[in-house]
Amino acid sequence: MKKIVFITTALLFFLTVFGQTEDSLMIKKLSDEILLNGKAYGNLHHLTKKIGGRLAGSPQMTMAEQWGEKVMKESGADKVIMQPCIVPHWVRGGEDKARTINGNRKLDVVALGNSIGNGKKGVKAEVLLVNSFDELEKKKDEVKDKIVFYNYRFNPTYIQTFRAYGEASQYRGSGPSRAAKYGAKAVIIRSMSHSTDNNPHTGATRYVDTLPKIPAVAIGLRDADWLSEELQKGKLSVEIITNGQFLDSATGHNVIGELTGSEFPNEIITVGGHLDSWDNCEGAHDDGAGCVQTMEILRVFKAVGYKPKRTIRFVLFANEENGLRGGNKYAEEAKAKNEKHIFALESDAGGFTPRAFGFTMTDEQFQKVIQWKPLIAPYGCSEFNRGGGGADIGPLRRALGTTALAGLSPDSQRYFDIHHARNDVFENVNKRELELGAVNMAALIYLIDKYGL
Amino acid sequence: MKKIVFITTALLFFLTVFGQTEDSLMIKKLSDEILLNGKAYGNLHHLTKKIGGRLAGSPQMTMAEQWGEKVMKESGADKVIMQPCIVPHWVRGGEDKARTINGNRKLDVVALGNSIGNGKKGVKAEVLLVNSFDELEKKKDEVKDKIVFYNYRFNPTYIQTFRAYGEASQYRGSGPSRAAKYGAKAVIIRSMSHSTDNNPHTGATRYVDTLPKIPAVAIGLRDADWLSEELQKGKLSVEIITNGQFLDSATGHNVIGELTGSEFPNEIITVGGHLDSWDNCEGAHDDGAGCVQTMEILRVFKAVGYKPKRTIRFVLFANEENGLRGGNKYAEEAKAKNEKHIFALESDAGGFTPRAFGFTMTDEQFQKVIQWKPLIAPYGCSEFNRGGGGADIGPLRRALGTTALAGLSPDSQRYFDIHHARNDVFENVNKRELELGAVNMAALIYLIDKYGL
Repeated sequence: MKKIVFITTALLFFLTVFGQTEDSLMIKKLSDEILLNGKAYGNLHHLTKKIGGRLAGSPQMTMAEQWGEKVMKESGADKVIMQPCIVPHWVRGGEDKARTINGNRKLDVVALGNSIGNGKKGVKAEVLLVNSFDELEKKKDEVKDKIVFYNYRFNPTYIQTFRAYGEASQYRGSGPSRAAKYGAKAVIIRSMSHSTDNNPHTGATRYVDTLPKIPAVAIGLRDADWLSEELQKGKLSVEIITNGQFLDSATGHNVIGELTGSEFPNEIITVGGHLDSWDNCEGAHDDGAGCVQTMEILRVFKAVGYKPKRTIRFVLFANEENGLRGGNKYAEEAKAKNEKHIFALESDAGGFTPRAFGFTMTDEQFQKVIQWKPLIAPYGCSEFNRGGGGADIGPLRRALGTTALAGLSPDSQRYFDIHHARNDVFENVNKRELELGAVNMAALIYLIDKYGL
Repeated sequence: MKKIVFITTALLFFLTVFGQTEDSLMIKKLSDEILLNGKAYGNLHHLTKKIGGRLAGSPQMTMAEQWGEKVMKESGADKVIMQPCIVPHWVRGGEDKARTINGNRKLDVVALGNSIGNGKKGVKAEVLLVNSFDELEKKKDEVKDKIVFYNYRFNPTYIQTFRAYGEASQYRGSGPSRAAKYGAKAVIIRSMSHSTDNNPHTGATRYVDTLPKIPAVAIGLRDADWLSEELQKGKLSVEIITNGQFLDSATGHNVIGELTGSEFPNEIITVGGHLDSWDNCEGAHDDGAGCVQTMEILRVFKAVGYKPKRTIRFVLFANEENGLRGGNKYAEEAKAKNEKHIFALESDAGGFTPRAFGFTMTDEQFQKVIQWKPLIAPYGCSEFNRGGGGADIGPLRRALGTTALAGLSPDSQRYFDIHHARNDVFENVNKRELELGAVNMAALIYLIDKYGL
């Protein structure tokens, strides 16, 4: 008996060591191929410089989809599916402007996504400064006919910048309607950032349908500081001109490249990012990076001759920024076809140095996954955390109940310097950092494909 | 007896928990102060934009020292010591130029530090391409009267970029003399970088005294690729003009701010960076970052009212880049005065997001230090590794034998994009990343001061 136990233990040990060595060699191979011959950076250059900002419904959206289809094919997908979905079609409609009425000082602003402008007529009104929703409530009797200026400061003391974003973004989301409820004519929102420049940061707002849809802009941080100081000295009026409107909905597409599984073709693994971006920038980090990393994983699997056991879908989601129609459609179809989606990974937090993966899955699954950490950590993701995923893959888990999710967490310190602002451009993406994100993602997808979940 | 054991255990547990809570609160306080009211970024702006590149012996060196003394005083040092040391005084002496003789194509080059030029006369010769020292040895009979072009590629497959630098930098250090040995007239060295631009990267070379001191330049990566391709097609000659020379040695100073210990004033803890930089850039990351982080720790200790038990010295070392005279002098004086230096920490790997500390110390000391990891990890340094320190603090351990060392390891992916190149400027330093480095360093110094080593 003792002998059998000994032999079994020795065999298990041998298999584990052998498996680990094989995996570690394969991951090194994937890494070397990406770092030596990677196409992600060149692809990002095309997407940002030849196509540019690509909001749902725009001509650039269509160009980006066609380009994505082409790159998926070139990267070696067994098939490429263009999955149609209806997307909102919001347009900025012209240049966003703001100035002080006395002094005619120009303020650097950008209309919030989904906000409705009133064109040349504009809004002229006294500005009411509030630093929080609590302060809005206290001053609610003063709001009528004013422009409410939410000067909520992005909290610099949080080390994880997404925590600051989580708190600040409620002002962008519900600030306009909460001010409209008390009769405000427009709102100005301090940009969700701790950058040192004055670029304003856009992003989606959500009007409450029963309240007036008032114009809403974000303002750069330097101008926000100036405005706040002036308002503490005395009264000040501002003119805002924005032209946002919704046109008829359009048809967008999730671009889906597929490698069909050799052993378990019905078990589906998804990896993706979103193809749309705001119109005021190139969407290089958000989320061009996630898209080109996704296609790079497809390319590298083919380049090193890795044949997946399970079906892997490489997805450029159609519409994350102002509607989530891409992710919703993908989940809807998966449910309708009764597909078995075991895992989905998203990269939508910028193309910076990878530091962690966040997992939303069962304890049992996490216990399995965390054993792979020593294999991946040398490439950057040295932390495996509970909780995480991505906006576009969230609907899949909600629809099917069982799909395990993960999100890539790159270093977050620079992300809100460029997020939804005019400086989210190709030049602010570092080639190696972008590639290392793809390396870590490729390693994780490889392990999940090989061992299942 | 059981009761005593129980009480002792309970007491130890209480003290540990209480100690950890107190420490975690203090570290949060240090972090908040740095992230809310930090002066490091503003100080770096002054150093880089008002003073600029500050090679040993230059007028900017003297300006930087005087400025350092002033900031140390303003930051609340108990005393500031200007420790003199003799430094080399190498000057570039003019614009470095290179061009192809047929075609007159300009090549973007920079003379290596310490290299000797021959002015207007220049060097005109055929170029011999070698990709490694091995290849040089094989081609040694062809070297005479040629310009040797070391096209050794910075290895992109290493995840830790300092590893690639370690391998590549031998060509800069000993390449010129190894080529001179076989009669070369000059050398061109591929820049030690994997950047996507064409900026050439300087750095110190070391001539062998018994061999001719031939001109030596580094060339930008795009030009290196072009030159290498052309040389594979056929012969090509280049003209190089450089003007480097040594003037009489000068007197520089280590700028030392001190907080005198309240309980163990004779136990000294050192934290520092080096004040000198190459002349072809602003030395923002290398090592303006380390200098302003060092002074920020002094400032934050005073700002939160922390009174160290041990003596803490905040040191801006005089001369790292081309002589190490600052670090050597500091160690020499410590030995001569029989000082007890328990620990030294250096930041000289850029002002990027902090990821790790590397420690050179006894096993026993490391076992103590690693217990603090949970306190520091939330601020970025989630890895505590064996091995590490810094060029300027190395001599201290060599001189005294017992001083434990540590080096801050920030994310290294972007470092060699800017290292010793004209784009090592203020604009390429991110405020939060710089500040977080100071946060992690302050936390470590606080713990070592409080608990000793």
